[in-house]
Amino acid sequence: MSFAYSRHIHFRDTDAAGVVFFANYLALCHEAYEEALAAAGLEISAFFSANDLLVPIAKSSAEYLRPLRVGDRVRITLRPEPLSANSFAINFEITRLGSPEKIAARVRTEHVSTSARLRERVPLPAPLAAWVGQA
Amino acid sequence: MSFAYSRHIHFRDTDAAGVVFFANYLALCHEAYEEALAAAGLEISAFFSANDLLVPIAKSSAEYLRPLRVGDRVRITLRPEPLSANSFAINFEITRLGSPEKIAARVRTEHVSTSARLRERVPLPAPLAAWVGQA
Amino acid sequence: MSFAYSRHIHFRDTDAAGVVFFANYLALCHEAYEEALAAAGLEISAFFSANDLLVPIAKSSAEYLRPLRVGDRVRITLRPEPLSANSFAINFEITRLGSPEKIAARVRTEHVSTSARLRERVPLPAPLAAWVGQA
Amino acid sequence: MSFAYSRHIHFRDTDAAGVVFFANYLALCHEAYEEALAAAGLEISAFFSANDLLVPIAKSSAEYLRPLRVGDRVRITLRPEPLSANSFAINFEITRLGSPEKIAARVRTEHVSTSARLRERVPLPAPLAAWVGQA
Repeated sequence: MSFAYSRHIHFRDTDAAGVVFFANYLALCHEAYEEALAAAGLEISAFFSANDLLVPIAKSSAEYLRPLRVGDRVRITLRPEPLSANSFAINFEITRLGSPEKIAARVRTEHVSTSARLRERVPLPAPLAAWVGQA
Repeated sequence: MSFAYSRHIHFRDTDAAGVVFFANYLALCHEAYEEALAAAGLEISAFFSANDLLVPIAKSSAEYLRPLRVGDRVRITLRPEPLSANSFAINFEITRLGSPEKIAARVRTEHVSTSARLRERVPLPAPLAAWVGQA
Repeated sequence: MSFAYSRHIHFRDTDAAGVVFFANYLALCHEAYEEALAAAGLEISAFFSANDLLVPIAKSSAEYLRPLRVGDRVRITLRPEPLSANSFAINFEITRLGSPEKIAARVRTEHVSTSARLRERVPLPAPLAAWVGQA
Repeated sequence: MSFAYSRHIHFRDTDAAGVVFFANYLALCHEAYEEALAAAGLEISAFFSANDLLVPIAKSSAEYLRPLRVGDRVRITLRPEPLSANSFAINFEITRLGSPEKIAARVRTEHVSTSARLRERVPLPAPLAAWVGQA
């Protein structure tokens, strides 16, 4: 399972160094994650509240390989990876489109399935487990 | 009643044009509003939820008079103004500190007191009315 | 001349009140402006630097009519309006899609054509004047 | 060498889940980095441009240990660490103040000293090397 989301870089994503602010690479990846869940019929806000679910990010790591500028078009691909009954990772790659394409960043996030009411870890609901690729 | 809040401009506030992104002038003003309420003992999140209150912004206007750059120090002053039993405005001025000081922007927001539960306008709770300067 | 840009609302656009942060309505409009210029072949960053041009926003105003939530799909339409030889306005409407559609906000920005080198007002370059609809 | 920077959490930092958006923990850390350099007389924007310097972030990692809410007061401490003649890391800890204090996140960034003109790695200028604690 893999998913791709494309958009332009906007002024709002950048800072006075003229390129995308490092924290906004992570924000871009989260956008792609939300789009991927929506495309799978798991609209994040509705699905999570209907299942008493919070899926906070427990860890992130990022390698910033190339700067991105206003007007650049990027493609963000993501690949979920099951970690345990109640956690999963997502591996993102941000590519700057053009000729040739260049990988601009690699990002990884780890997510923990949590009951909003009980404040403890709970197994992933079946549709989310399926999306993650749990057996 | 007037309140002043000072801080530096950070990279996160700016965009690739090298200066503060226009929408972030409004975000700066909202920070000052939150600090003003906290200083008055009306911590926005706790106070609003304890009073079943939402106070959404219904209108904003801004004049951008001077660019602001990373490292600039700014002072945001604000002056609330009662409009009706269930609404008020806030007038903000953002000043770039230094010699001489220069006004960088004027911003005005209008806020409507709303019951979160009933989804209709309600009078300002007394402590907020006092802060706003209602008679 | 009018242009439409659609996208989902993302977590990044919202705040702890559960809805889009008021300053981010303006950021959404700026995204639509950048997309409109790009669609007209006037990619904002390249075009502006090639023409020694800054087009800062001098004023903005906004009416916030409805909250927007994560997963909502919005359409932002914009209509530029010439003001003078060296300035123009843009009128934006943000619509929450669905049945029925609802207008969520109206935003207006005013832009001033400025020489980056001379720091003074200059006439709009011909392609930008054409986009704005100057006679 | 270590530095501490404190501020409140604002609405702008949070998202519709009611807590600080994960990418904004990194933005908070960058604010602290900018404040630390300014406190050391190395105002980031002026110092970098005077030295033909870019110091992009090449890597980041973060552990998110506790949610942060609007009105929370946090202290961000940072400790730079030399890595090589032209690179350094910064170790950040975000603590939620109160009784008792709780560590909310640990973040690490790696920075590479680069000539803006030559687009290649260059040794850290002496004042920055001193700040980093290079021998």
